[in-house]
Amino acid sequence: MDNVIENKRRAGEYAATLVEDGMVIGLGTGSTVRYFVEALARRVREEGLDVLGFVTSGRTAALAEQLGIRIHQGDSIIPIDLTVDGADSVDAELNGIKGGGAALLFEKIIATNSKRNIWVVDESKLHERLWNFPVPVEVVPYGSFSLLRRFEQHGYQPTMRMASDGVPIATDAGHYIIDLHIEDHPNPQALATELKQTVGVVDHGLFLNIADAVIVGGTELRVVKKVTTIQEEVIK
Amino acid sequence: MDNVIENKRRAGEYAATLVEDGMVIGLGTGSTVRYFVEALARRVREEGLDVLGFVTSGRTAALAEQLGIRIHQGDSIIPIDLTVDGADSVDAELNGIKGGGAALLFEKIIATNSKRNIWVVDESKLHERLWNFPVPVEVVPYGSFSLLRRFEQHGYQPTMRMASDGVPIATDAGHYIIDLHIEDHPNPQALATELKQTVGVVDHGLFLNIADAVIVGGTELRVVKKVTTIQEEVIK
Repeated sequence: MDNVIENKRRAGEYAATLVEDGMVIGLGTGSTVRYFVEALARRVREEGLDVLGFVTSGRTAALAEQLGIRIHQGDSIIPIDLTVDGADSVDAELNGIKGGGAALLFEKIIATNSKRNIWVVDESKLHERLWNFPVPVEVVPYGSFSLLRRFEQHGYQPTMRMASDGVPIATDAGHYIIDLHIEDHPNPQALATELKQTVGVVDHGLFLNIADAVIVGGTELRVVKKVTTIQEEVIK
Repeated sequence: MDNVIENKRRAGEYAATLVEDGMVIGLGTGSTVRYFVEALARRVREEGLDVLGFVTSGRTAALAEQLGIRIHQGDSIIPIDLTVDGADSVDAELNGIKGGGAALLFEKIIATNSKRNIWVVDESKLHERLWNFPVPVEVVPYGSFSLLRRFEQHGYQPTMRMASDGVPIATDAGHYIIDLHIEDHPNPQALATELKQTVGVVDHGLFLNIADAVIVGGTELRVVKKVTTIQEEVIK
């Protein structure tokens, strides 16, 4: 267990070395991101690094402000240079499941407004295939139990995420979360499209084709990244 | 103008004749639906018709209860036999734009939970092509002004729907509405899919392939409906 904490710390801290002066930085949520935020704050204090943070949750906002990172205020979104976030499951194509509750939707909105997205994880999150973690689906409360039954019929083994007092938990945006316990699915993209097209669904925790790189803390510290190459074929 | 009111009344009242004893009835919103609800209430009072109403807005709930129509209570959705709703623009394929603000999302959720959907309109709503009415898009407040700019870049001429006090109006579900002033689009289905897939979009006012029939009040009272036929082709 100590190793996991150490692995998270190394991944998070390494991500902070990638931040450049003047950047607008999206700050995700989670225990690994916390190490990133702390290391970033140290660079702000010690090197006088000038960054503007963009937060996806009240929790991260409080942490960042307490540590002295300047935070963008208000509801508007400005272009973000780099977002560093965690993930609950990452596959070989750098697709991920983010199971986080309240911040899921805001994390996706920020990710799609970011020039680059880097995920920081410990090696236990890396899998050949995605389906090691329930897929959260953020839904409008109205009609949500009808949606639950429909997901049941699809064989997705859905559960409504409940608070300790036995009522559905509400996200920051006032929606409910249905967790899909999918054992396997041949086509994550098709599932993502199907879920998002469903009336009553606001968004879901499948983050496909979003991460540009994943920093993996393990026995070694690794960076897995997408490399785009241009291929030219001579036809004649 | 009197004719429009008379046309709405005839369409709404005719729809009430289609309701059968024991049905669960989805009640939409709008001025034409109001005539339907009033005529349905008369049938409940005078014929002892037994129906259970399902509402999409607080306004219709108040009206129905005041008129003595029993209303389904609570957040759960049971299967609906027939929903009667209005539309702001209907094309020759019975696709529609519903511009209504606060109730748009709930109307779509109920429509997709209904065995049959009938729209009641006056003839001014019928057009060869859809684009005679702005397409409302219900969006998560967080990041909504960033979405507005993206729609601008797509040439959709978006406007944030504002209340009289100069702040964005909030829907019943706590979202904002962006109206797209689209002059023409070759493929409503492609636009609908594109909008719903957009991160931050909850749903939109394009109601495609939802209406089974449209009751049109005009100089004549007409019913335009979808007819499904099975065609068999002899190959050899």
